Amino acid sequence: MPDPANGTPDLANERVDHRFKALPPDAEGLTVGELSAQRRNLFTGGFTTPVLALSAESVEHNLRLLETYAERHGLAFAPHGKTSMAPQLFERQLEHGAWGITAAVPHQARVYRAHGISRIFLGNELVDAVALRWLAAELDADPDFRFICYVDSVRGVELMDEALRAAGAARPVDVVVELAAGSTGRTGVRTEAECAAVADAVAAVPTLRLVGVAGYEGTMPGADAERVREWLHRLVGLAAAFDKAGRFDPAVGEIVVSAGGSEWFDTVAEVFAEIPELSLPVLKLLRSGAYVSHDDGQYRTRTPFNRIPEEGALQPAFRLWSQVVSRPTAEQAFTNAGKRDAAHDLHLPEAQVVRDARTGEIRPAEGITVTGLSDQHAWLATGPGADLEVGDWVGMGLSHPCTIFDKWQLIPVVEADGTVVDHIRTFF
Amino acid sequence: MPDPANGTPDLANERVDHRFKALPPDAEGLTVGELSAQRRNLFTGGFTTPVLALSAESVEHNLRLLETYAERHGLAFAPHGKTSMAPQLFERQLEHGAWGITAAVPHQARVYRAHGISRIFLGNELVDAVALRWLAAELDADPDFRFICYVDSVRGVELMDEALRAAGAARPVDVVVELAAGSTGRTGVRTEAECAAVADAVAAVPTLRLVGVAGYEGTMPGADAERVREWLHRLVGLAAAFDKAGRFDPAVGEIVVSAGGSEWFDTVAEVFAEIPELSLPVLKLLRSGAYVSHDDGQYRTRTPFNRIPEEGALQPAFRLWSQVVSRPTAEQAFTNAGKRDAAHDLHLPEAQVVRDARTGEIRPAEGITVTGLSDQHAWLATGPGADLEVGDWVGMGLSHPCTIFDKWQLIPVVEADGTVVDHIRTFF
Repeated sequence: MPDPANGTPDLANERVDHRFKALPPDAEGLTVGELSAQRRNLFTGGFTTPVLALSAESVEHNLRLLETYAERHGLAFAPHGKTSMAPQLFERQLEHGAWGITAAVPHQARVYRAHGISRIFLGNELVDAVALRWLAAELDADPDFRFICYVDSVRGVELMDEALRAAGAARPVDVVVELAAGSTGRTGVRTEAECAAVADAVAAVPTLRLVGVAGYEGTMPGADAERVREWLHRLVGLAAAFDKAGRFDPAVGEIVVSAGGSEWFDTVAEVFAEIPELSLPVLKLLRSGAYVSHDDGQYRTRTPFNRIPEEGALQPAFRLWSQVVSRPTAEQAFTNAGKRDAAHDLHLPEAQVVRDARTGEIRPAEGITVTGLSDQHAWLATGPGADLEVGDWVGMGLSHPCTIFDKWQLIPVVEADGTVVDHIRTFF
Repeated sequence: MPDPANGTPDLANERVDHRFKALPPDAEGLTVGELSAQRRNLFTGGFTTPVLALSAESVEHNLRLLETYAERHGLAFAPHGKTSMAPQLFERQLEHGAWGITAAVPHQARVYRAHGISRIFLGNELVDAVALRWLAAELDADPDFRFICYVDSVRGVELMDEALRAAGAARPVDVVVELAAGSTGRTGVRTEAECAAVADAVAAVPTLRLVGVAGYEGTMPGADAERVREWLHRLVGLAAAFDKAGRFDPAVGEIVVSAGGSEWFDTVAEVFAEIPELSLPVLKLLRSGAYVSHDDGQYRTRTPFNRIPEEGALQPAFRLWSQVVSRPTAEQAFTNAGKRDAAHDLHLPEAQVVRDARTGEIRPAEGITVTGLSDQHAWLATGPGADLEVGDWVGMGLSHPCTIFDKWQLIPVVEADGTVVDHIRTFF
């Protein structure tokens, strides 16, 4: 379904059918655009449970907040798209000032390119020869396509060079040396001496071009503000040392320094503000992704805005609605949402509200606790005061945006009054 | 893409594109059928990592084994389709003698109907008015469509009746009373007295028809063979008592007695063999689902075939291939498969083999242990003897079929020599 204007898929023309759980059976055959235009009500408009709702207002709020935050702190922003894998959200992130979109794996970059994203930061070393062949063709076909990825080993540089030569790549691939956040953190070069060796390897091949340094602080063991700050200072120091040594090509016109997930962007902003003047302008690239939906668990607790409330607050945008299918005793209830529908890797869902099947009224989920998930059921413990019957809908808050989005291929976007105004397509 | 022969979607005509991770970028635009016909090699045919492979031989073996098992023990078989959500596998399960396919939620039944499944057992109470309206229309449009679901509460019966009346349903919906496996197990009526009350409620409404009793032993707290046997005896006793009380409609022509996931089907077979003669023939319906792929974790440990090796052995059919993208120290390596690609709810993946990037040779993954998963990375600990470099592929065994299938929308089916002979489409 190409959009004739630009060749990218036209998501509004996707057909609503059995592929998309929770969408109204009586909307079968409509396009997604037509269904959105009907402005149905989430509760009475024919949606089935379980259904995941994304708050229109909260997403807009979060998009604006990080746009403002990045601007205020002089940061360029490449939000991590692996969180949502939703081109419609990428488009809005770009409208809200984003420089480009970050990816974790080449497949994600393919999805981005299919939807017209022109700047991609891949936060990994890319050593898959097939993916490199694809990348070389994309770069050569579109001079406006900017792509940057990590390198973190001499062997990786060899593999990239081999594959890009075999593919007959005309344009070099821009790379940044990844400095590991901690000696047992995730990927990345452990020491500055090894970083120099990797940079030497890059300099020795015509297929790559060193454009900066980067890393990710989010998986640092025992991370706290002090350790993150210390690592960021090392990263900035590495950029300065590489610059001094003339390792960055002046023809690129800028030096990329990138860090920042969704837990430490305040510290990133603080340290990146102190980057000394280098021989070229510095693209200070923040890559947070979870902010777009925020959550009711991991990021509620860990967002930097808890430390800097004067700069704003993100809003949790997801609510998962599931229906009570069994109420066998006064102490237990079971709804029809399980591991297939709810993030469960970091925390269990949190019962927040109940929509009464008899009256349609929504009340707080008092005395109701989610104690477990099966594949297709939530296990609820109900206290003496809990008012809950078979047929009622339970609205749940979830933890970890990345594992919420990936359980839904088409997500209703809902305004505060329950009106479904859009549907977000994901590509996992 | 309807198949002109029967109106069901023609999965072989689905286009290969960016929607399907791991599929060859240079296959873009081919149909799935055309790609399968090319019989590419998984390792050299342009697939990108991470890629999940389903063994053609092991799936065929498992399909045959459960077919034989059910036949030998006089069981009808409605394998749980929620495991794979793969109509191509459903078709093969039916070819291998299955009576029908089990579902957990109405959305799954919608997928089944879109792909021509004519007998569906829904292992839950169905109280969603929208889904009941859809169901009534399906039943009324197709006299050959057989549908059975649980009831486990008087309130549930009321809600079903209300919704089916409102939908103007012409055919009654067949229901079975669900007897809970244990007083704190999952859904289901806790006592025989309450079961009779639910059956009374069913008898009082024209929109439902009581056709049997059922339950699920897999979530019984502290389940062991003795407790499962005891519960199965209660279930059979309930069927006999209901039959004696004339609760089953003779016009149905059979009485449904159903239980059995993938951990206790030996005990189900044993107890169901002793079902006394009732007033009608008994459809003894087993519902195991995980057997189709089996696994290298949960079901490797828990399969009944461990207790009855003389009846055969299932084969784990999945292998997840991911690529080493970072090897920062002698003790650590990181591959590009994470929570988005691998089941992680019950156990971590198990590193089984390494495919050497230099030679293409496959060797045992000696000294390599998966210690954690990020969203898009696996964390590997490597011992002194581990032979692993950036670029190598690591083949992993996984645990829990239900959360393996649901991370992949199109899964290559691979023969032992690496030839990809088919692609399985899933609908989650």
